[in-house]
Amino acid sequence: MTDIPRKLSHLQTPTLLVDPARLDRNVKRLRERAAKLKVKLRPHLKTGKSLDVARQVLDGGAGPATVSTLAEAEYFAAGGVTDILYAVGIAPQKLERVAKLRAKGCDLAVLLDSMDQAQAVADKSKETGDPIPAFIEIDSDGHRSGLAPDDPALIEIARCLHEGGAEMRGVLAHAGESYTVSGSEAHAEFAELERSMTVKAADNIRAAGIPCPEVSVGSTPTAHGAQSLEGVTELRAGVYSFFDLFMAGIGVCTLDDIAMTVLATVIGHQKDKGWIIVDAGWMAMSRDRGTAAQEIDQGYGLVADAGGEIYPDLIMSGANQEHGILSIRPGSTATLPDLAIGTQVRILPNHACATAAQYSGYNVLKPGSTELSAFWPRMNGW
Amino acid sequence: MTDIPRKLSHLQTPTLLVDPARLDRNVKRLRERAAKLKVKLRPHLKTGKSLDVARQVLDGGAGPATVSTLAEAEYFAAGGVTDILYAVGIAPQKLERVAKLRAKGCDLAVLLDSMDQAQAVADKSKETGDPIPAFIEIDSDGHRSGLAPDDPALIEIARCLHEGGAEMRGVLAHAGESYTVSGSEAHAEFAELERSMTVKAADNIRAAGIPCPEVSVGSTPTAHGAQSLEGVTELRAGVYSFFDLFMAGIGVCTLDDIAMTVLATVIGHQKDKGWIIVDAGWMAMSRDRGTAAQEIDQGYGLVADAGGEIYPDLIMSGANQEHGILSIRPGSTATLPDLAIGTQVRILPNHACATAAQYSGYNVLKPGSTELSAFWPRMNGW
Repeated sequence: MTDIPRKLSHLQTPTLLVDPARLDRNVKRLRERAAKLKVKLRPHLKTGKSLDVARQVLDGGAGPATVSTLAEAEYFAAGGVTDILYAVGIAPQKLERVAKLRAKGCDLAVLLDSMDQAQAVADKSKETGDPIPAFIEIDSDGHRSGLAPDDPALIEIARCLHEGGAEMRGVLAHAGESYTVSGSEAHAEFAELERSMTVKAADNIRAAGIPCPEVSVGSTPTAHGAQSLEGVTELRAGVYSFFDLFMAGIGVCTLDDIAMTVLATVIGHQKDKGWIIVDAGWMAMSRDRGTAAQEIDQGYGLVADAGGEIYPDLIMSGANQEHGILSIRPGSTATLPDLAIGTQVRILPNHACATAAQYSGYNVLKPGSTELSAFWPRMNGW
Repeated sequence: MTDIPRKLSHLQTPTLLVDPARLDRNVKRLRERAAKLKVKLRPHLKTGKSLDVARQVLDGGAGPATVSTLAEAEYFAAGGVTDILYAVGIAPQKLERVAKLRAKGCDLAVLLDSMDQAQAVADKSKETGDPIPAFIEIDSDGHRSGLAPDDPALIEIARCLHEGGAEMRGVLAHAGESYTVSGSEAHAEFAELERSMTVKAADNIRAAGIPCPEVSVGSTPTAHGAQSLEGVTELRAGVYSFFDLFMAGIGVCTLDDIAMTVLATVIGHQKDKGWIIVDAGWMAMSRDRGTAAQEIDQGYGLVADAGGEIYPDLIMSGANQEHGILSIRPGSTATLPDLAIGTQVRILPNHACATAAQYSGYNVLKPGSTELSAFWPRMNGW
């Protein structure tokens, strides 16, 4: 503990803060939903990328978990997570790393949507004598990868895995398009698409005499919007643990749920322009401007004081690499606060996954205070 | 050398590549310009953030150099760079780190534009008995920080530094608005604004009997556009070493000058939509969409084959965290290339500073080949 600064005022800025009480509340909210919907929860660890965060999200357990890179899989497996799904289409060149991690005792599953990938997974399974478990990706909303549930290739791929020495573990969809709509009713529609199309795909595979034990769906909006998950076995979501301005903008959370902020320091003013300059620019916030197309454009982030109290309509309206320009949102009648050089502020991010990726870890706040209790390291890279 | 992969095909993707021949050419181009304009060059190390890159950029020397964070200053000082300007307005809380680094023998200078900052720098200088050198920022184009050259505060600040125990080292401007215009004539106009306004500020300070030895200007567009730098003592620029699609879009370089690419692997197709899916998304490219408002929108990047040959009009049109969607640019008659699963491609970035920040280092290509000669580590964070 001796190396951990004890107060916000001891921190060098910009740096990343987490409010563990909000994190805990967010984590419990989805855990309770999953229990009610009678599915297992497979949290996505790509937002936190931290064993300390994973302990909260996985309730101290060893999985199930989802990751977005093999580096995450390796990091979390080394930290004791033993049930991991790598939910990005597998490149054949990565199967050696997959096999190595499996040989160490981690039940790592892969994702694919083509015969070329299925053949490579089957070949590697035969080579190692260890059947690699694979999910086939289903496209439920045209967002990116995946097959239609009635695509004949689906059965062909499932058979290639099952008969070729791999393990045909299940089907998977991610309703990425749910991010483009607002409100739980709209999210429920995308959730029903995820559910019905994966269940249909699983039914088609099973009807061909091929096992398909798992049916995996999820995204933060659909996980919170789903009315029924009949036929689904597991639910995935990632950013629900921290939330962010984007998620608040589509009604999945409130501003009070956002558990991650960037601490910055005032380094200048352009009073004629109504600007306050801080030492957090796009390197500290990321270039994510996800709220730009939403009803409320939050710029590069919404500004709060060091205690977390949001300043009315004060946003980071512009960003250079290491400079942020704070100003009152256009059209607002709010007054620019008088923040002297050296004042610390906290900035709520548009996108928690992108902002956190700029840091080596999280400074953990004591609930309701500006004191710190710990530093949680995180990993980055591939 | 045993740990360094020797060929692109040995690399796990996504990963970052640098073409050292292009880097060398870009570096020499600006070095020659600076010599011709009779100013010293103070390269900005914020793009590379690597001692190996710095060796090229600084021609093996110990400076002068510019940095954007104190973590960079500490990293480069530890690597032997002894003349560093931290070109972001100083927060008083950072002066302890500045003093420590100066005590180790690095001539680190700071930047400011307010009396509060000047007083803090003077106070710290007195406290340590080591006059901290400071530049006063001049606003030449309304881009972000800085004072007008005829602002009475300028003299007051200069006097506070000079008489308060600090060192009044110079004035500085950065023509950030030059990024919004295209072509060397337009850039020359911004360069002349940078020059004339800093020279005027320096003249005003000197007329008040206060020393102002240095007049520092620069940005990559104005450094390449400047016709005369009379009265200027030093020129700063950063992204000129790597260049990127943004800089090509405003005519400062050609696509053939871009020295940084992201290596990615094909992991899927959506043939009906004309999409190729790769394992590099916005985490690998950054969220920077700087070319979106330019004449040619390059999406998240322009795609080349593993040898560096650009595919006509193939861009990363969409990106998720770890997925990139490649497609033909809207309106183009080019044909989608037939890229099998597992094919490696190289993606030219919109913004070299933002893309490189996602990586721990650079895989260095042997000129004109797909073989590798070295890995250059880089630093991130604050």
